[in-house]
Amino acid sequence: MKHALGIDVGGTTIKCSLVYENGKLGEKVILPVVKGEEASLTLNKLFDLVSPLLDNGDKDFIGIGIGCPGMINSKKGTCDDATNLGWHNVDLKRAFEDRFHVSAFVENDANAALLGEATFGVGKEYRHMVFLTLGTGVGSGLFLNGKIYSGNEGKGAELGHMSIDFHGRQCACGRKGCLECYASATALTADAKLAMAKHKESLLWNICKDLDSCDPASAFEAEKQGDKTAKEVVDNYVRYLGEGCLNLCNIFRPEAILLGGGVAKQGENLSSRVQSYLSERNYGLLGLNVPSTKVLVSSLGSDAGIYGAAALAFIANREWQKAVK
Amino acid sequence: MKHALGIDVGGTTIKCSLVYENGKLGEKVILPVVKGEEASLTLNKLFDLVSPLLDNGDKDFIGIGIGCPGMINSKKGTCDDATNLGWHNVDLKRAFEDRFHVSAFVENDANAALLGEATFGVGKEYRHMVFLTLGTGVGSGLFLNGKIYSGNEGKGAELGHMSIDFHGRQCACGRKGCLECYASATALTADAKLAMAKHKESLLWNICKDLDSCDPASAFEAEKQGDKTAKEVVDNYVRYLGEGCLNLCNIFRPEAILLGGGVAKQGENLSSRVQSYLSERNYGLLGLNVPSTKVLVSSLGSDAGIYGAAALAFIANREWQKAVK
Repeated sequence: MKHALGIDVGGTTIKCSLVYENGKLGEKVILPVVKGEEASLTLNKLFDLVSPLLDNGDKDFIGIGIGCPGMINSKKGTCDDATNLGWHNVDLKRAFEDRFHVSAFVENDANAALLGEATFGVGKEYRHMVFLTLGTGVGSGLFLNGKIYSGNEGKGAELGHMSIDFHGRQCACGRKGCLECYASATALTADAKLAMAKHKESLLWNICKDLDSCDPASAFEAEKQGDKTAKEVVDNYVRYLGEGCLNLCNIFRPEAILLGGGVAKQGENLSSRVQSYLSERNYGLLGLNVPSTKVLVSSLGSDAGIYGAAALAFIANREWQKAVK
Repeated sequence: MKHALGIDVGGTTIKCSLVYENGKLGEKVILPVVKGEEASLTLNKLFDLVSPLLDNGDKDFIGIGIGCPGMINSKKGTCDDATNLGWHNVDLKRAFEDRFHVSAFVENDANAALLGEATFGVGKEYRHMVFLTLGTGVGSGLFLNGKIYSGNEGKGAELGHMSIDFHGRQCACGRKGCLECYASATALTADAKLAMAKHKESLLWNICKDLDSCDPASAFEAEKQGDKTAKEVVDNYVRYLGEGCLNLCNIFRPEAILLGGGVAKQGENLSSRVQSYLSERNYGLLGLNVPSTKVLVSSLGSDAGIYGAAALAFIANREWQKAVK
C-alpha cells in the first residue's frame, strides 16, 4: 500500500511516522529539539532516526513531507526563518532529497495540520474550509477550492489578526480588537481569571485553587458544575469566537470551519455552541438562502501535522500520475 | 484582432459593446430596462440591439460574456434570481448560444467588474486582489491566484458583512458593526449629515444648502475648502475603511485592494489616505516582513462590467487554446 513519511517539526519535538494511504500510521519516532543546536546537526540526527523506517527501493514509498514552523517557502521547500528553532535559510527539501533520493515537500506547520484534516481527518469531504487553532494565539489556515491558500508570498491567512472590534482590546500586533485577543486560549484564561477576581463565590475557585492554576479548561469545567460566573465566561467566549466565525462565513462561505488547538479539546461542547451561534445569525434577518457552514473540531489532534506533511507527498504523487496519464 | 461582446446588465440599463484584445471598446449600445417586463421580451430586444454589432462568420469573434446582478450560477450560465429585474430561472447562456451560435458566459456583476479591472484595467499586473465597491452598500469580489473566488455555491465574498465592531452600528443583515455600516457611500453621507446637524458653522452647509442634498462627495468637497468638521468626517471614514482593509490584508495578503463605487470617484485623494493608514499599521509593531498591499481606485469606472463580461470569453478562449495545444 502506498505510504509517505510525515515529519512534523515543532518547537520542542520533531515527530515522524509513515502514513499509509488508508490513513493508518506506522511507528512514531520522536526527536527532542535541542535549543540553539545547528540546523545541520539536528537534520543529521533526524536522518539517522527516520532511516530505519524507510526501505530503500520500496516502490510503494512515494516521498517525504515536512511541516515546519516559521517563514516557509513551500515552492522552494526552504525554511527561511524559524525563530523558535534558530533556523535560518535551511534548504529542507534539498537536504532530504540528497539524503534519501525521493521527492520531499515542505509546508508551514499550520497549513500542514489543515491539510492533514482535509486529507485524512474530519475535513475529508470538504473543498472549502477555514481552520482556526485556539492556542496561545489564534493560528489559521485556508483551504479553498480543495487547495491551501496562503496569499501573496505565503504571508496571508492570519485570521487571528482580523479585528472584530476596532475600539477593542489592544493586540500585540499594534491594532485593536483582533480575534486573537478574544478567542485564543490565552484570552479565555485571562477572562476566567478576571471573573474569578470579581466573583469570590465562583466555583472556579474550587477548581483552580488560585489564579495561577486557571487554564483554558477551567471555565468549561466550572460551568458543567453549574457555576454562573463560569457560564458567563464561556458564553462570552462562544460569542467572540462566533462573531469571528460569522465574518469568515460571509467572506468565504466555507463548507466547514474547523477548530483546533487547546480550547478545541472541549470538542462537541464547544463546536455545537458555536454552531448554534452561527445558525441564529448567519444572514438570518435578510432571509437569504445561503448554504450553512458546519463547525467541526479537529479529529487528528496532535497527529494532524504528521498526516498533513505526508499528504503533501500523496497530493504531489496524485498530480504526477494525472500528468503522465 | 480578437474581440468579444461584453454585456453589462444593470437595474436601469443594459450596456453592450465589443471589446478588443488590446482593450479598445467598440460602439456602445444601451437598452433601458423596463420594470416588470418579461425576461424573454427583454432578451429579444437585446438580441435585436446587439445583432448589428456581430459579423456572422468572423473568426476573430470569440464569444459573448454577460455580467448580471442577483443570484447567478456561473457554471450553468443561468440567472436564478434577480429581484431588481424580476428575473427568475433565466438561462442566459443557452438563450445567447441558441441565437448567435457562439459560446456565451455568465458571471455575477460585481465579479464581472473585478474581472474587467483584472484583465483590462488597473489590476492587470496582479494575481491576488480584493475589490470593494463603496456604494449604497459595500459590494465586493475576490481575485485569488488569478481567478475569481466566490465560495461555496458562489455565496461568499460578502466582505461588506465582515463586522469590524461587534458592539457597533446595527446592520440590516441582523449583525452589528458590518463594514458596510461604516464604509458605504450611504454611511458616509449619514455621517456627514450628523456632523452638519451638530455643527451649524460647518462649510458643509454652504455646499449642501440642506441636509437632503448632502451626498458622498460633500464632506470631501468641504474638507478641500478647509472645513474642520468635514475633515473629521473624512478622517473617520478613512479610518473605518482602513480598518476593514487591514483585516483583508491579514486575511488575504493581497497585492492590491481595489476601490470602486461612488466614493472611489474621489480617486487618489481617497486611495492615498487609505494607503497611508495601512502602511502605518500593517503589522508595523510586530516588525514582520510582510509584502505591502497597494490601494488602487477602479480605472474602468462604469465600463468595468462590459470589459469584465467580455473577459469571460477571452479567458475561456485562452484556456481552450491551451487545452488543444
